[in-house]
Amino acid sequence: MKFIHTADWHLGKLVHGVYMTEDQRYFLERFIEVVEEEKPDAVVIAGDLYDRSVPPTEAVELLNEVLFKINVELNTPIVAIGGNHDSAERLSFGSSWYKKSHFYLEGKLQSDFQPVTINGVNFYLVPFAEPGMVRHLFDDSSIHSHDDAMKRVVGEIEKNINHDEPNVLIGHAFVLGGKTSDSERTLSVGGSGCVHADVFSPFSYTALGHLHSPDAIKHDTVRYSGSLLKYSFSEAKQNKSISIIEMKENGEFELRTRSIQPKKDMREIEGHLEELLDPSFYEKENIEDYFKINLLDEGALIDPINKLRQVFPNVLHLERKISITDMKKKSSFTSIKDGKKSELDLFQQFYEEMTTSPFTEERKAAIADVIEKVRKEEALK
Amino acid sequence: MKFIHTADWHLGKLVHGVYMTEDQRYFLERFIEVVEEEKPDAVVIAGDLYDRSVPPTEAVELLNEVLFKINVELNTPIVAIGGNHDSAERLSFGSSWYKKSHFYLEGKLQSDFQPVTINGVNFYLVPFAEPGMVRHLFDDSSIHSHDDAMKRVVGEIEKNINHDEPNVLIGHAFVLGGKTSDSERTLSVGGSGCVHADVFSPFSYTALGHLHSPDAIKHDTVRYSGSLLKYSFSEAKQNKSISIIEMKENGEFELRTRSIQPKKDMREIEGHLEELLDPSFYEKENIEDYFKINLLDEGALIDPINKLRQVFPNVLHLERKISITDMKKKSSFTSIKDGKKSELDLFQQFYEEMTTSPFTEERKAAIADVIEKVRKEEALK
Repeated sequence: MKFIHTADWHLGKLVHGVYMTEDQRYFLERFIEVVEEEKPDAVVIAGDLYDRSVPPTEAVELLNEVLFKINVELNTPIVAIGGNHDSAERLSFGSSWYKKSHFYLEGKLQSDFQPVTINGVNFYLVPFAEPGMVRHLFDDSSIHSHDDAMKRVVGEIEKNINHDEPNVLIGHAFVLGGKTSDSERTLSVGGSGCVHADVFSPFSYTALGHLHSPDAIKHDTVRYSGSLLKYSFSEAKQNKSISIIEMKENGEFELRTRSIQPKKDMREIEGHLEELLDPSFYEKENIEDYFKINLLDEGALIDPINKLRQVFPNVLHLERKISITDMKKKSSFTSIKDGKKSELDLFQQFYEEMTTSPFTEERKAAIADVIEKVRKEEALK
Repeated sequence: MKFIHTADWHLGKLVHGVYMTEDQRYFLERFIEVVEEEKPDAVVIAGDLYDRSVPPTEAVELLNEVLFKINVELNTPIVAIGGNHDSAERLSFGSSWYKKSHFYLEGKLQSDFQPVTINGVNFYLVPFAEPGMVRHLFDDSSIHSHDDAMKRVVGEIEKNINHDEPNVLIGHAFVLGGKTSDSERTLSVGGSGCVHADVFSPFSYTALGHLHSPDAIKHDTVRYSGSLLKYSFSEAKQNKSISIIEMKENGEFELRTRSIQPKKDMREIEGHLEELLDPSFYEKENIEDYFKINLLDEGALIDPINKLRQVFPNVLHLERKISITDMKKKSSFTSIKDGKKSELDLFQQFYEEMTTSPFTEERKAAIADVIEKVRKEEALK
C-alpha cells in the first residue's frame, strides 16, 4: 500500500506582502503530475491546507481545483485534517458529501475515532485542537497541555485499534525534538505546546504536519513531511520534499522522498551593492527567485532597494549589516549644537543610513510634526 | 413533478445586534419536517443562503447540517444558487463533489448553461452577478445594467433550450415591480439594478430570490418565494411562506404555500409605557417575540427600555413619538442665560427627553469635553 504524505500547504500565504498563490498553483500542478506518476493508494494532507481561517478566494478556488483533480479526475483517495491555521468549522463544510468519493476530510476533532481504511491501512484522523477543546470534548479536567490532549486522543483510539493491522495516525502538532522556523505559529516552545513522540508508539507511522522542515525530528516512525514551499527566510536552507511511503501488511514501511522545483526559490544572498549589481555575479543566479539580501556596504547608499530590484525583481527583504560600533566610529552626524543642520536634516540623514527606503515627503512631514511638538513641550517647561 | 421554492435564508443574519442563528435553526428543523411530509422531487434555494460572504461559523455548521439532512438523509435533490450576500467562490467550494448526490450548487455565474434536469423539469441556475462580471464573462461591452446582463444570460440559455419541456429559471435579482424592505441590500431602485419580468418569458416558472416578500411582484410565472424569516421591522407585516410548485409535463403548474410558525415572531407594537406594562395587555401577547415598540408617552420617562425588557425580553428597538411642535410647547428647558443650569445639565435633560437610553458617566464625560472645547474656542476669539 502506497501513500503520499504532505502537509502545511498554507494556501493563501502572504510572505513579506506577496501572495504565494501563483507559486502554490505552479507547485501543485507539478504535485498532481507526481500523483499521476506514482499512482498512490492515498494522498495524506496533515493540516494547514489554508494559511488562515478565512483565506483569500483565490486560495479557496485553488484548493477546490487541486483536490478535485487528485480525488475525482485521478481517482485517488484523499485523507486530510485541519491544522491550527485552518478554521475547523469552515474546512469541515461538505465533508459528509466528500466521503462518497473517498475524500476524507476531518476539519474538527471528534470524539469518535473510526479509522478510514484504505487498502488494508487504517488511518486515524486527528485534526489540530487546543487542549481546552479536548478537555471539553471528553469532559476530562486533567487535560491541560497538548501532550495530555494527544495522550487522551491516542488512548481513545487504542480502545478499538487492531494492532495486527498497519495503523497510521495523521496529526498536526508540535512534537518534541522539532526545530521551529519563523513561519510556524509556535504555540509555545518546550512547554505545554509540545507532544512527546512516544505518545505515537501504537502506530506504524505517524504523518505529521505543523513544523515546516522534513528533518524537524529524527524518529523512525514519527515524521513531518515539511511544508509545500519555503514560507520564510528561516526556511531558506531547508530541502522541501514530498514523502512517499510504501507500507507492508505488518506495518513496516519504506520511505522515499521526491523534490519538486518551485517556480521561484526563496534564498538569502549577501554582498556589497556593486558586486550584486555586477552582471558577472547575477548572470549565474536565478534572478526571479525571492531574495533576502544582506548588504555589506557601510555608510549611506542611494536607493539601494530600487537598484537591486532592477536586477532581482523579487527582493522581499533587504538588510544592512551595520554594527553599532561601526556606527559610532564612522558616524557622519554633526552635533546639533553646531547649529549647522536642523533636526529634520539630521533625522533624514540618519533615516537614510539606517534604512533602505526613501525618506518621502509624507515621512518628512510626520517627523517635522513630532519635532515641532517636542519643541513646544520644551518651551512650556 | 413537485418542487419547493425557497430563498433568502440569510444564515448568520444579525438583526439589531441579535444573531438569528438559533431562530433559523428552529425554523429549518420545521422546514425539514415539511420536506419529509411533502416528499418533493427537489428543493430550490434561490440565493442568499448566507447573510455575508464570510458568515459566522455557527451559520456554516447550520447550513451544512440542514442541507445534509435534506439531500442525503431525505434523499432529496437540492438546486441552489449564490445570491448577492453570498461569496460566489467560497460558496462554490466542493460543488463538483455534491453533484454526485444530486445537490446542485452554483455559487458563481458560468458561461455554460447546461440545465439540471430532475424528473423531466429543466432547471437553469443563474447565480447573482454584477453587470460588469457578465460583461467580462461574455466579452460583451454592451452590458451595463442588470437588465442587459439578464437578457444576455437568457439569450445564452435560449440557444439550447427545448421549449417542449418544462423549463425553470432560478435567479437572484431585483425584478421590476418589486417592493423593497430595509433588509434587502437594494442595488439601486428603479435604475440599472432592475430586471424586467418580461425577460423571463421563455420559462414555465422563474424561481426568484432577493426581495423578501412573497408578494413582491404580481406575475403568473415569475415569483419570489420570500425570505425564510422576517429580517427587519419593515417586514413585520409580511406573511412568510414556503412555495410548493407541482408542474405538469407541459410546464403548467399549480402553486400552493405553507406557513411555518417561527420560534419568535417580529412585530411592532405601540402604546403608552404604562399600558404596555399592564398584565391585562401583555398576558395576551407572545412576550418572547422580537419587538419594535413605539412609545406614545410625551416628556421624560425613567429608563423605559429596561422596564419594557422586564416584560418583553426581546425588545430590539424602541421609538419615541415626540413631534417637534410638542417639544416646543411643552419644553421644560430653562434658558442658558438664566444661568440657573449648566450646559451639561441642560444637555442631560435634553438627552433624556429625546432618547430612551441613560445618560451614562461616559456620555457625560464626552459631552463635558465638547463643551469645554467650545468654551476655549470662544475664549480665543
